[in-house]
Amino acid sequence: MPSHDVIVIGAGLVGSAIAMRLAQEGLRVALVEKNAPGREASWAGAGMLSPAPDSPASIPLVPFGRASLSLYPQFIAEIEDISGRRAGYRTEGAIELLFSADAERALSTLIALHHALGLPTEPLPIDEAIKVEPALTHRAQAAAYFPYEACVDNRALTEALLAAASICRVELFPATHVRQIVIKHGRCTGVRTENRSLFEARDVVVATGAFSSLLEGIVPRLATRPIRGQMAALRSQQPIGHVIRCEQGYIVPRDSAGPQRLVTGSTLEDAGFNKHVTARGIEKILSTAQELIPKLANAEITELWCGLRPDTPDHLPLLGPAGVDGLTIATGHYRNGILLTPITAKLLREWIVEKRVSMDWEIFNPLRFAGAGSAGTTAPEFLSDNPAGSEVAHK
Amino acid sequence: MPSHDVIVIGAGLVGSAIAMRLAQEGLRVALVEKNAPGREASWAGAGMLSPAPDSPASIPLVPFGRASLSLYPQFIAEIEDISGRRAGYRTEGAIELLFSADAERALSTLIALHHALGLPTEPLPIDEAIKVEPALTHRAQAAAYFPYEACVDNRALTEALLAAASICRVELFPATHVRQIVIKHGRCTGVRTENRSLFEARDVVVATGAFSSLLEGIVPRLATRPIRGQMAALRSQQPIGHVIRCEQGYIVPRDSAGPQRLVTGSTLEDAGFNKHVTARGIEKILSTAQELIPKLANAEITELWCGLRPDTPDHLPLLGPAGVDGLTIATGHYRNGILLTPITAKLLREWIVEKRVSMDWEIFNPLRFAGAGSAGTTAPEFLSDNPAGSEVAHK
Repeated sequence: MPSHDVIVIGAGLVGSAIAMRLAQEGLRVALVEKNAPGREASWAGAGMLSPAPDSPASIPLVPFGRASLSLYPQFIAEIEDISGRRAGYRTEGAIELLFSADAERALSTLIALHHALGLPTEPLPIDEAIKVEPALTHRAQAAAYFPYEACVDNRALTEALLAAASICRVELFPATHVRQIVIKHGRCTGVRTENRSLFEARDVVVATGAFSSLLEGIVPRLATRPIRGQMAALRSQQPIGHVIRCEQGYIVPRDSAGPQRLVTGSTLEDAGFNKHVTARGIEKILSTAQELIPKLANAEITELWCGLRPDTPDHLPLLGPAGVDGLTIATGHYRNGILLTPITAKLLREWIVEKRVSMDWEIFNPLRFAGAGSAGTTAPEFLSDNPAGSEVAHK
Repeated sequence: MPSHDVIVIGAGLVGSAIAMRLAQEGLRVALVEKNAPGREASWAGAGMLSPAPDSPASIPLVPFGRASLSLYPQFIAEIEDISGRRAGYRTEGAIELLFSADAERALSTLIALHHALGLPTEPLPIDEAIKVEPALTHRAQAAAYFPYEACVDNRALTEALLAAASICRVELFPATHVRQIVIKHGRCTGVRTENRSLFEARDVVVATGAFSSLLEGIVPRLATRPIRGQMAALRSQQPIGHVIRCEQGYIVPRDSAGPQRLVTGSTLEDAGFNKHVTARGIEKILSTAQELIPKLANAEITELWCGLRPDTPDHLPLLGPAGVDGLTIATGHYRNGILLTPITAKLLREWIVEKRVSMDWEIFNPLRFAGAGSAGTTAPEFLSDNPAGSEVAHK
């Protein structure tokens, strides 16, 4: 008899949350991570919890983003309660600045779209914006306020969630690199690791983010590709309360004793699995941060880093059964992995335990690109490994 | 009897070279350093060895720069020979790009000035510049070539020099913070450290760089102030051979196995003793590096740091006897400490050992600002401690 009921591959936020939810149902769960747990995209992100669509392509995701955001307060309370750690959850909301000449018209379009999507975004007069955030630039043409948005210290949340999962009896296997899903007689029976040892279980969940396309044994390979996002942290004498953003980038506040830590980003680059910060990427991020808050010119740079988002051909997640009994996919969350963690964990728990889900997730069917490439190979549009890092266009 | 003949305060390049030269004369030398030896401006600099004046104010320095540059090959050979370490000395020379609309006229002025100063700088047609450095931007309006210039890996040189000094029997005292020069009956008799212990010697040499104004017991206080310079290192797939610079900044090549390390800078900021890298400073450096070599856009940023240059009211060093027997000053080298290390060590050795110098150093008289402030206090124009970092105008 296998020693575990479920193997979850990938100990990022998504994998860890799924593992915890299943363990809370009494299942024996192995959480297997190739390197250090929680040190990939979950660590690299900014922690903005925004269900607002960043392009027409992400409009179908909005109901899932809203549902996940509404789960967040309870999710945070539970993780903090179980782990005894703080996750740096903040609910001041976000302010978006518009700089274009037709900013007023762009704002009206944004508000109309958001209201149609059930997002209570509001226009915010510039002088009001400066009243609530005195350090803001005076050069914006228009502003929108997202009172329902939140942000989280995703590194703190990751640490707290891993601790909570462990307390819930999830068994963590760090530095254990799963190479292959094992399929026998049309059913998934476990996974094989780099050193050829075998983990067996009734259910396998794939939550390997940007590295999902590397996993062998799934036919066709999962259609993910890494999209690099560079980041910088600043230490600021000008505390801010809200997430501040514009089309070019964002600033996310953290709870800090003393000068405030601000996390600012980002880039969207196809650079394969290369994880370098670059001259152009960091220049752009620093420039945008100063455009939003001019006084950040003199803020200390305390850290530079980057992460790899798991993109898919339609920028939507790969979520659900993989056409083989016992194999379920939860990857491809692209820019929304932190936001979508609670709803993903909820749906996966429902599916594994009850074989039904409370939201229609057919649009996320992980097999929807099955015709795009040859069986067993990566879909052609993702044959990309360009360390020079070409920028990716959106919208 | 004192245990040392000479105490040198400050184990940067200047202090270490002086200490070594004196020890080579058979003197018993103590080299006293408040923190780790060689980790201030000598570590932070780029290692450009350029005697070219960067402003009219530095024209009087050109003969000393030329003399020091001509000492460099022998200085490096000797240090490398004694220490068994490499100093990364490169003699490909420098290329300066001019971007302004009247670049041709500016180039003629530059060439005429340099020839008058004995510097064999040459005009360099843009297509010739691109031939010798294929990665160069095509957008420059004019270029100058400095075939006589060199550069050095100042961190490697600092390590090698400290090792050589030690081999020459200089006794190094790290983590020993000198607070005060001790004057008795009109003669310097030694120094007092933070923990009130006393070092005695016949001669004391002050080589404390940007921290010189903090030293007590010299009347009036030494007229230095720190001018912050921020820096970035890139790892480039595009190797370059020459120092590349323009009015806004520079790129200095290093010997590297694999992708080349390029050191790029810098800023001129009055930020007191604050040693932060900032959003504006690093943005500007990254932007200039890409203007000079566009392909650096995708170069990895491997390090950010900054250092404090020891500036003086006329931007010239403080060099020579301090009006009290047994006390000699060698500080205030501003942007030229690395270049001027060999000539400074030579002149200080001559003065301490022979009480005569081979170049007229009266313009560097450390007492020349004595009337500027009240006795015993910092000269008024240096009462500056602005952590926000205002930029310093030159020219």
